[in-house]
Amino acid sequence: MSGPAGAARVLDRCAELDLISARPGVLERTHLTPEHARANQAVAGWLQAGGATSTWQDAAGNQWGRREGRRPGLPALVLGSHVDTVPDAGSFDGMLGVLMAVEVLDRLGDRVGGLPFALEVVAFSDEEGTRFGSALLGSKAVAGLWDEADWDLRDRDGTTLHQAFLDFGLDPRAVGDAARDPASMVGYLEAHIEQGPYLEAAGASLGNVTSIAGARRFRLVFTGEARHAGGTPYARRRDALVGASEAVVAIERVARERDCIATVGRIEVSPGAVNVIPGRAVISLDLRAEADVERDATWAELERVLDEICGRRNLELDVVEAHRADSAPCAPWLQRAVAAGIRATGDDAPMDLWSRAGHDAMVMASVTDIGMLFVRCADGISHHPDEDVREVDVEAGLVALERAVLEVAAAVEAG
Amino acid sequence: MSGPAGAARVLDRCAELDLISARPGVLERTHLTPEHARANQAVAGWLQAGGATSTWQDAAGNQWGRREGRRPGLPALVLGSHVDTVPDAGSFDGMLGVLMAVEVLDRLGDRVGGLPFALEVVAFSDEEGTRFGSALLGSKAVAGLWDEADWDLRDRDGTTLHQAFLDFGLDPRAVGDAARDPASMVGYLEAHIEQGPYLEAAGASLGNVTSIAGARRFRLVFTGEARHAGGTPYARRRDALVGASEAVVAIERVARERDCIATVGRIEVSPGAVNVIPGRAVISLDLRAEADVERDATWAELERVLDEICGRRNLELDVVEAHRADSAPCAPWLQRAVAAGIRATGDDAPMDLWSRAGHDAMVMASVTDIGMLFVRCADGISHHPDEDVREVDVEAGLVALERAVLEVAAAVEAG
Repeated sequence: MSGPAGAARVLDRCAELDLISARPGVLERTHLTPEHARANQAVAGWLQAGGATSTWQDAAGNQWGRREGRRPGLPALVLGSHVDTVPDAGSFDGMLGVLMAVEVLDRLGDRVGGLPFALEVVAFSDEEGTRFGSALLGSKAVAGLWDEADWDLRDRDGTTLHQAFLDFGLDPRAVGDAARDPASMVGYLEAHIEQGPYLEAAGASLGNVTSIAGARRFRLVFTGEARHAGGTPYARRRDALVGASEAVVAIERVARERDCIATVGRIEVSPGAVNVIPGRAVISLDLRAEADVERDATWAELERVLDEICGRRNLELDVVEAHRADSAPCAPWLQRAVAAGIRATGDDAPMDLWSRAGHDAMVMASVTDIGMLFVRCADGISHHPDEDVREVDVEAGLVALERAVLEVAAAVEAG
Repeated sequence: MSGPAGAARVLDRCAELDLISARPGVLERTHLTPEHARANQAVAGWLQAGGATSTWQDAAGNQWGRREGRRPGLPALVLGSHVDTVPDAGSFDGMLGVLMAVEVLDRLGDRVGGLPFALEVVAFSDEEGTRFGSALLGSKAVAGLWDEADWDLRDRDGTTLHQAFLDFGLDPRAVGDAARDPASMVGYLEAHIEQGPYLEAAGASLGNVTSIAGARRFRLVFTGEARHAGGTPYARRRDALVGASEAVVAIERVARERDCIATVGRIEVSPGAVNVIPGRAVISLDLRAEADVERDATWAELERVLDEICGRRNLELDVVEAHRADSAPCAPWLQRAVAAGIRATGDDAPMDLWSRAGHDAMVMASVTDIGMLFVRCADGISHHPDEDVREVDVEAGLVALERAVLEVAAAVEAG
């Protein structure tokens, strides 16, 4: 082996992928674009150099590599993440997990041939949903959760997902071939930057993910009456914005009390004139919790609070649920393997945490057991060019992920 | 004279102006737009048909008509209001006063030639401030209160007021020509819908305005930090929208306690994505009270409350005062003329009231004496398509305004 290895090589390769972008100087690499094809080719080359005996792009544009275990044709332990990005992205969200998986394959080397499973690496084609507005298209194909209605999704230029498959050289009729038989997999392990500040606050390089939060998203429409700002006394007002503002404050209060995360990212009022009482206000609500039961109980309480506000202020409330993803718990036996990996780095008390963000692993959980290893990132920043990781943490992550693979092997041997 | 006259014609013409809108089926006619030009043309035509011997659009886009009095060149009694609207407006705010003025000119007919003043009608170009966020631009030009800084105001499309003048065919350098010499005016009388529920509650068709409340308008900019909605715990959040929402609720509470009127009509957040914490929120504030001293004391208290919110939430607050108009008392002698006009309709006890809403008259008060006649409107609704007046009240208003003009003439004769 010449040149850098380990964490340095992982970071060099992240930097190489930075250059495969739709925009010079800014990282944007989205689903089924020429950049996506080039990223897959780069990953395939690194897989081959790292000991994969076969590499292939599947029927949904995901890039795979495989090295056989003790016998050819065994079910596989899959390591991976994604290579697509948000607009103006950082270098590590997704890519770090893919390149750590490639590096662990390389580190294990000939030891893979003694494992009770094959080792596979996957670079998912679409996790962010940047191009077509629907996230996790790559892992959904692998999990057999492809939605035929998605063929009509369009990007900003009006190109359908169906046409994008054709342009990429994929046959839309064959997308079902990307679905993996659950019996062909032992489990799925994903390394990923934390995208939050908890590890940094705890002084920990790595974290063991217990569960990936389910999110529910709502559109809340408050309807009152638009009237003249000067002439309308308070007793006659039905101000939709004051009602929505009370709701925004109450949403924060209730979510904090219940240890959930609730965010109102959008608000629009109409008519939107400085001297007119708003007759209508629309807010978005993104609600997350470690467990679905907590999230749903929080929403039930919020519904009561919203009804009280609207009743007192004589406003109408319409609620539209725009998105719902249930939480995905990590399998206890894979959590144990990840924790053992973290302990191998010298951290005797691996930190457990739940993922507030969604990941490919949450889709893979529908067809196989999942585990996740979080790597500390700088100041919790993600989806931004300032996204950063330390080389020492990446090196620890490689040690942990390699050891986790061996722990999975031991668990499989133990039956 | 053929066709309808009096109140029916006034209402027909309001309906005609409804059709001159930027949006089909919805009334929106803003400053220096093609719709504004068409409305001015329509008013000019009605003025000519009503006996105006000259009509002109001034250097600020206001439309005028004039009929000489006893001698050419006498100072003028000016009747008028405005022809611009809020978005999704009603048919009468502004337009009713302009068309009642046109109708009174017509009713007086050749009697104008015997008056000790010329009679003029004005349709102001901008009262609402919808397009450029700064109200009363038309009457400010007439009062010689033009602010050179206003040239850089921009509409939602980024067009400056300066460019809008050019696009409308006006020379910005000549805006000073719109200023009227106080010696050229006897006074200004404005009829307007009440935009409040007080006349209706009292069972009165008309009201005599004693004073116009002063308003101050602010633009409040809350700056926090945009971060990932999932990964950022509450302790790390600097959510500009939750801070702005607390402010909206506090503004209502403080204003109610102090018997003022405060309205937040606009709110905008950025980046405005469902899964990103808003890093910036901008709200408008419109603050009114019967007396300026009360209004200013309320603002001082609000400043303390806003500072507390932003300090606690680690937000920056920028305050821009976008508009300030001190309260404008109606001249006692013109109040007497308006009261005499109301008595001429059979109402022996004309109702006095102060205007919570701003009007062109408050700007005209800086260069001439003002009087205002309020016409009852349905349910106090204004700035809304449901804005409505009764034909019988408009007819009473025409009788009162005509008589008020003659009372002014008598007062001028009496010296």
